[in-house]
Amino acid sequence: MLSFECDYNMGAHPKILEALVKTNMEACQGYGSDIYTERAKEKIRKLCGQEGADVHFLVGGTQTNRIVIDSVLKKYEGVIAATTGHINGHEAGAIEASGHKVLTLPGYDGKLRASDVEKLLSDFYSDRAHEHMVFPGMVYISHPTEYGTLYTLNELTELSELCRHHSLPLYLDGARLGYGLMSCDTDVSLVDIARLCDVFYIGGTKVGALCGEAVVFTHNNAPKHFFTSIKQNGALLAKGRLLGIQFDTLFTDGLYFEISENAIDRAQELKQLFQDKGYTFFKNSPTNQQFIIMSDEKIKELSPIVRFEVWERVDETHCAVRFATSWATEKKDIEALAEIL
Amino acid sequence: MLSFECDYNMGAHPKILEALVKTNMEACQGYGSDIYTERAKEKIRKLCGQEGADVHFLVGGTQTNRIVIDSVLKKYEGVIAATTGHINGHEAGAIEASGHKVLTLPGYDGKLRASDVEKLLSDFYSDRAHEHMVFPGMVYISHPTEYGTLYTLNELTELSELCRHHSLPLYLDGARLGYGLMSCDTDVSLVDIARLCDVFYIGGTKVGALCGEAVVFTHNNAPKHFFTSIKQNGALLAKGRLLGIQFDTLFTDGLYFEISENAIDRAQELKQLFQDKGYTFFKNSPTNQQFIIMSDEKIKELSPIVRFEVWERVDETHCAVRFATSWATEKKDIEALAEIL
Amino acid sequence: MLSFECDYNMGAHPKILEALVKTNMEACQGYGSDIYTERAKEKIRKLCGQEGADVHFLVGGTQTNRIVIDSVLKKYEGVIAATTGHINGHEAGAIEASGHKVLTLPGYDGKLRASDVEKLLSDFYSDRAHEHMVFPGMVYISHPTEYGTLYTLNELTELSELCRHHSLPLYLDGARLGYGLMSCDTDVSLVDIARLCDVFYIGGTKVGALCGEAVVFTHNNAPKHFFTSIKQNGALLAKGRLLGIQFDTLFTDGLYFEISENAIDRAQELKQLFQDKGYTFFKNSPTNQQFIIMSDEKIKELSPIVRFEVWERVDETHCAVRFATSWATEKKDIEALAEIL
Amino acid sequence: MLSFECDYNMGAHPKILEALVKTNMEACQGYGSDIYTERAKEKIRKLCGQEGADVHFLVGGTQTNRIVIDSVLKKYEGVIAATTGHINGHEAGAIEASGHKVLTLPGYDGKLRASDVEKLLSDFYSDRAHEHMVFPGMVYISHPTEYGTLYTLNELTELSELCRHHSLPLYLDGARLGYGLMSCDTDVSLVDIARLCDVFYIGGTKVGALCGEAVVFTHNNAPKHFFTSIKQNGALLAKGRLLGIQFDTLFTDGLYFEISENAIDRAQELKQLFQDKGYTFFKNSPTNQQFIIMSDEKIKELSPIVRFEVWERVDETHCAVRFATSWATEKKDIEALAEIL
Repeated sequence: MLSFECDYNMGAHPKILEALVKTNMEACQGYGSDIYTERAKEKIRKLCGQEGADVHFLVGGTQTNRIVIDSVLKKYEGVIAATTGHINGHEAGAIEASGHKVLTLPGYDGKLRASDVEKLLSDFYSDRAHEHMVFPGMVYISHPTEYGTLYTLNELTELSELCRHHSLPLYLDGARLGYGLMSCDTDVSLVDIARLCDVFYIGGTKVGALCGEAVVFTHNNAPKHFFTSIKQNGALLAKGRLLGIQFDTLFTDGLYFEISENAIDRAQELKQLFQDKGYTFFKNSPTNQQFIIMSDEKIKELSPIVRFEVWERVDETHCAVRFATSWATEKKDIEALAEIL
Repeated sequence: MLSFECDYNMGAHPKILEALVKTNMEACQGYGSDIYTERAKEKIRKLCGQEGADVHFLVGGTQTNRIVIDSVLKKYEGVIAATTGHINGHEAGAIEASGHKVLTLPGYDGKLRASDVEKLLSDFYSDRAHEHMVFPGMVYISHPTEYGTLYTLNELTELSELCRHHSLPLYLDGARLGYGLMSCDTDVSLVDIARLCDVFYIGGTKVGALCGEAVVFTHNNAPKHFFTSIKQNGALLAKGRLLGIQFDTLFTDGLYFEISENAIDRAQELKQLFQDKGYTFFKNSPTNQQFIIMSDEKIKELSPIVRFEVWERVDETHCAVRFATSWATEKKDIEALAEIL
Repeated sequence: MLSFECDYNMGAHPKILEALVKTNMEACQGYGSDIYTERAKEKIRKLCGQEGADVHFLVGGTQTNRIVIDSVLKKYEGVIAATTGHINGHEAGAIEASGHKVLTLPGYDGKLRASDVEKLLSDFYSDRAHEHMVFPGMVYISHPTEYGTLYTLNELTELSELCRHHSLPLYLDGARLGYGLMSCDTDVSLVDIARLCDVFYIGGTKVGALCGEAVVFTHNNAPKHFFTSIKQNGALLAKGRLLGIQFDTLFTDGLYFEISENAIDRAQELKQLFQDKGYTFFKNSPTNQQFIIMSDEKIKELSPIVRFEVWERVDETHCAVRFATSWATEKKDIEALAEIL
Repeated sequence: MLSFECDYNMGAHPKILEALVKTNMEACQGYGSDIYTERAKEKIRKLCGQEGADVHFLVGGTQTNRIVIDSVLKKYEGVIAATTGHINGHEAGAIEASGHKVLTLPGYDGKLRASDVEKLLSDFYSDRAHEHMVFPGMVYISHPTEYGTLYTLNELTELSELCRHHSLPLYLDGARLGYGLMSCDTDVSLVDIARLCDVFYIGGTKVGALCGEAVVFTHNNAPKHFFTSIKQNGALLAKGRLLGIQFDTLFTDGLYFEISENAIDRAQELKQLFQDKGYTFFKNSPTNQQFIIMSDEKIKELSPIVRFEVWERVDETHCAVRFATSWATEKKDIEALAEIL
């Protein structure tokens, strides 16, 4: 059965498994003090063009969002996010469980607008009762967003400047960062992100790793005793090598970018395919997630032979569906889909 | 360099890596809905002799302790543990960070005594001010303990009966459970534990897995929406297969028990070796961790050639040191150590 | 200077002070075990027509909302509220600090609509990913609302039936309940509220007390060990008599209703006054808070001689302002205002 | 019936009620922005000899401990306290509920020893695994302690110097501070405390107020946005005047000290009385709480005619009982007790 339902349905890129096998019987220090972790951090710092960056490896996306946000915020602060932001809807209240409000603003195809953030800040500080309210303490964006869309360099720069002006850390959730960086339709590089954000993460789970996200505090600004916060939140791996080796592999010889590009190439082919068949799109996504408007009838017809996700209802007889490609999608998968369609 | 510093310094048992490689390009459902996870759960239920058990896979020990304890306790309850319990000292306050007090009792070689628990309960409920205090809501033990010691079946039964009499869930931390079960000096079986405890976990990280702990709610008593609690705590793996495949492998053809036995055999040889050389022991451990009293001089001499952990100072010139064997320790490692000593 | 800025600017109703003075040198048991507290609870149970109600006295509104909501919700649940709800905007994130998300719906003049709640529930449970989301665990409404508006008996009944159908506790914040009950324009009685809600509170702070709110769990449904939760949250008064005596006084000879009526009468006069002067209203409020649209010029002119609150900007040259009457407002205050206007 | 069971069984000092009555119909700004609050703060700053002190009024002791400790600590820090400390046993886990561990040390008649704190710090930082543990972030003491005992100026100075050397805030719980300051057997003044501690509170609830504690951050070191933290914790009174007026009264013409002295004088008489009757003491307390060893028979005999608290069992036939005097105890109460004994 063809599989386009998500980008985390396969195992890991074979080179990662090879590296795990090869290093398996070496005795490594625990808790991320091993040489592979150190090597991976060094590679990431270099690729980011930030020698002073603090890099930490965590296991998954919700965990990363929760720990980063909770560690950066003061207890009386909340985090600004789009209503469609992952932390607002699909993390089971992880942010609130750690004590912080998500302060929502409208999302435009999943993106925050600097002008909205500016208005929120200006409204907040001009409200006489603002000491009775949650202080905005951070801005959360994702790139790509939940809808596969991307910030332009201008948009990101504008947000960054606004945040710096207000001493508000800017945090970028890069669960699918590779697919954003390798999009044909982006002018934002990893170096830009490292320069413009205060903290971000490079997603591994959805880009070829078994698990793992690389958190980058871009200018030596990791919260004090961040290691202990990781431990306290139950996110510290005894065998930290599992993350170190994976990211070391992903950032050797450009593997992360190469496999991300594969997903983009396949997504472009998939997009073309649906266009050629006369489908319209729910969102115009330049990354690995494609949102297609499909009749209920067609959905019913395809479901037994192709896996994809029904996203949301569009009208009485149509839904938006998501087809995702990944590092593992092959040209022949697209060809097989073409035949089916 | 010889490596006895802990039981999580190697990668995973080769059969686990083989299974990961073999299944790598199969598309699996996410979040633990894959067939490997289901298969592993079924095997564990059978081995426990509890068809109605709820099994969940988590990533690490502190995470497991935090989520299980927080999910079982009411907000006004705390967890009873030995002062030496892992949750009390070495989890960076994870239990308190989730809102609960650790109510400490003395540990005897790391073990709780039922009579102490009974006295705590009786003192608590006879205190007129007990509604101003933290309610005891759970009993936490570990088996093996921090000192490698084990509860006897009598001791465990006594604790279990006391807990059931008081409707107090009994939780057993089995980070090193395999090494406890395969000890030459135990009368406690997995079936006993599943029968006597309300919840426990079977440690994977320290017994041959890359990561992973199998939580068993023994009688269909998992807290409501435990899945969502896992997600909220950032502990849900998108690629749940990583845990399912590992535990499926560990519980195929008795691998978990076989590799645990190896650690015990090596530990016995190591113990004999130190005894033969005239060393005395800080604790009499029947499992894979051996605590030896060693002169500072000897420690200094050995440190450059053998890895082990200095545990605590015993007197002006001696410390207790820990040598740990594991699933990966080979007979030749012990022989090499013999030569060095 | 005339004072209409809020309903908590004066001390307490003189009868309350009299009662405090009269009982002052009696030795009372602490923590709410005194006879005045017991007597007040009994009176409230009777007035509510619910013999089985659990009544607890807390100190202030935010405290009450936080403790009630946190005690009723499971850790994976959130509370549904209007975006304009007090808990969502003006309690400094108290709900989130206790670990729970506020799930917002549009407010219509501050009121929730049953149909919106129903849609939220139906969307939630039909979402395949709902186990990754915050479970709706309670409905929060206020009566009067932030805008002084009131639910009709029909609206409240509809919400109540919906909540009971879904086993969702309905919680009514009655910080200004007296002013709602005595409005000329309501068909909702205290008995109705006690019958239709699962928990609500009768506000004292804004209705003549120095401090204090009476929480009513209407059908013997107080969360287990609620006393200990109050203590844990730092809300337990050693001299519980301070609350007991106040509520005993307020509910003796209908004082609470009498002084609430005074506020309503004054508010009606005030409303008439502004109408007569040709002002329009931002909200049509039948209670003690009146929202008037006023030119910036007029605001500037009045500010040095009358205290009132500027609520929000309406257009370039006008704002909505709030004039509040209270138990303490006198007829001559309205007359003085008339003269000024 | 004679009443010696606690120091919070009466209402408030009559002068406080007078002040409440006198100011009752003045319109005051809410949330502590009134002139009485400002005046009380100014008086406290003066009496403390710290012009730069930040003073805040909270409602009760547990609330104060929870908010102060939680606001000062980082999320990875805990608070050092004696095992007998109020926060460790009798606050229903309020500190842990806010996320922090209480790190216990032995109490000597309720007092912490600087040498024990020093050892804890030295052990902590020399432990290689200390990043896996809760960081000591604050020292909590009470003065008087739970046993009515007092720190000497030397002891307090030693603790203070140690804390400052380690940049560890020193926090003094002064729930019964007046009784400590006016003890015949103390060399510690309010100025000393303000000089040696980083934060402390002056108890009102147990020293003549209806409720209220005055928190003093001694050197302009209140945590940022402490007001918002108070609000978030549900501890902000709308009618802040209730606290301001009480403390303004207590610190006018030395009332706080005068009524504290009364309690001490009565306690001395009570102590003498028991000594004369041949009783021995459980603790040698120089303050208003006296701990007497009494036979079960005598306890049974006295209970119907005198209120006192049975503290703890001493042997098979005797208990320690507590007799407390207060600002309200009269000479005739002691005389009546003498007659009974």
